[in-house]
Amino acid sequence: MRTIETCISPELIHLHQIKGKTVVVVDIFRASSTMVTALANGVSCILPVKDLEQCRAYKNQGWKIAGERNGQQAEGFDLGNSPLVYLNWQFSGEKIAMTTTNGTRAISLVQNEASEILIGAFLNITALVNYLETTQKDVLVVCAGWKGKFNIEDALFAGALSLALGWEHECDATMAMEAVFQNAGRDLSNFLQKASHAKRLQNHHLERDIEFCLSLNQYEEVVFLEKNVLKLK
Amino acid sequence: MRTIETCISPELIHLHQIKGKTVVVVDIFRASSTMVTALANGVSCILPVKDLEQCRAYKNQGWKIAGERNGQQAEGFDLGNSPLVYLNWQFSGEKIAMTTTNGTRAISLVQNEASEILIGAFLNITALVNYLETTQKDVLVVCAGWKGKFNIEDALFAGALSLALGWEHECDATMAMEAVFQNAGRDLSNFLQKASHAKRLQNHHLERDIEFCLSLNQYEEVVFLEKNVLKLK
Repeated sequence: MRTIETCISPELIHLHQIKGKTVVVVDIFRASSTMVTALANGVSCILPVKDLEQCRAYKNQGWKIAGERNGQQAEGFDLGNSPLVYLNWQFSGEKIAMTTTNGTRAISLVQNEASEILIGAFLNITALVNYLETTQKDVLVVCAGWKGKFNIEDALFAGALSLALGWEHECDATMAMEAVFQNAGRDLSNFLQKASHAKRLQNHHLERDIEFCLSLNQYEEVVFLEKNVLKLK
Repeated sequence: MRTIETCISPELIHLHQIKGKTVVVVDIFRASSTMVTALANGVSCILPVKDLEQCRAYKNQGWKIAGERNGQQAEGFDLGNSPLVYLNWQFSGEKIAMTTTNGTRAISLVQNEASEILIGAFLNITALVNYLETTQKDVLVVCAGWKGKFNIEDALFAGALSLALGWEHECDATMAMEAVFQNAGRDLSNFLQKASHAKRLQNHHLERDIEFCLSLNQYEEVVFLEKNVLKLK
């Protein structure tokens, strides 16, 4: 019998066993949504990079560089962190080196120990559920959060994923977020209007990004990490 | 305009400003429920003590010592961590030195910086709300959790408290737990059957403690920390 648990902040990762688990990294606004969208729109691979400097080194070396800090495109970068720019196969065939405030950090925390790393987004949640049902390992959902703090949209995804899987578990965070999703799931974007990160993005006029990141099952592909690079399964 | 935020684990306390705030420490199963019950039943004061050894030193020095680790009474202690033993004014007039797995640790983390420290429990939530409405400071709810992990019953109390206060806030954790309480509040004990800590207590045949800790407004008193000692307001 498999189980699922949720790590609600990267700062609590030491309280969870990572080894031998399938880890789903979630950063709904916007890193994981952008990763799924980019790869589903033909980007050949994404290299998650920890910091801006390291990412800059890839520029003009056969990579496009995508970087964001505090919700805004970093200076000198080809791309920010919006999923929308990847639509209509605009960057099809390109390789992207990407660094974000919270999302790439969450990946780096589990990279050495996880049995497999997948990227979670509402945009392909059903595909992810279907894939997880074919695997054998316990699942740990790691929420990217915001600078260490609990982020409701990431945790909400964990609740939605757990409800869809229907596995038994003893994780209070997962249990709480299942209840929130049962309450809010019918109108995610209305519920998340008040979320702290949504407000932050609204301040940058990124409402269309928010709306897009909360749309369910736009893609049927699953994203995973292979040899430090994100690809489609 | 005042605001409220929730620290969902003592391990995330460094992400929150404590200075100048009214801090409400919550450990529903069972430290904060026991503190409220004991003081409302005539205990003259409670000294929260960090560890078992330190607590033992108070024995036979005019104090009863209450100690629990992993849900069970510690060896050589007068009392465990059950609120029920204090009912019917059984320990009226006594001074209690108390140490618990998570609750007293949460108090010690905020003791130096908070403007005021209150103890939160469902047993006196309305009294606490009424008191907070008369104060001027922002409120930080600190959930004791379980060995650093998120605990649903503590976080649920934060949601209930915030709903009752009705203050505006930008705290995602508070927002999430408001939604859980709206979902679960009508039948707390049924909802919390599945909570990890409730299961832990059920294993020790402490169902009556759970039921009691989840009963609303048994007491009209508010508990606060004054010079390292818990007393009634």
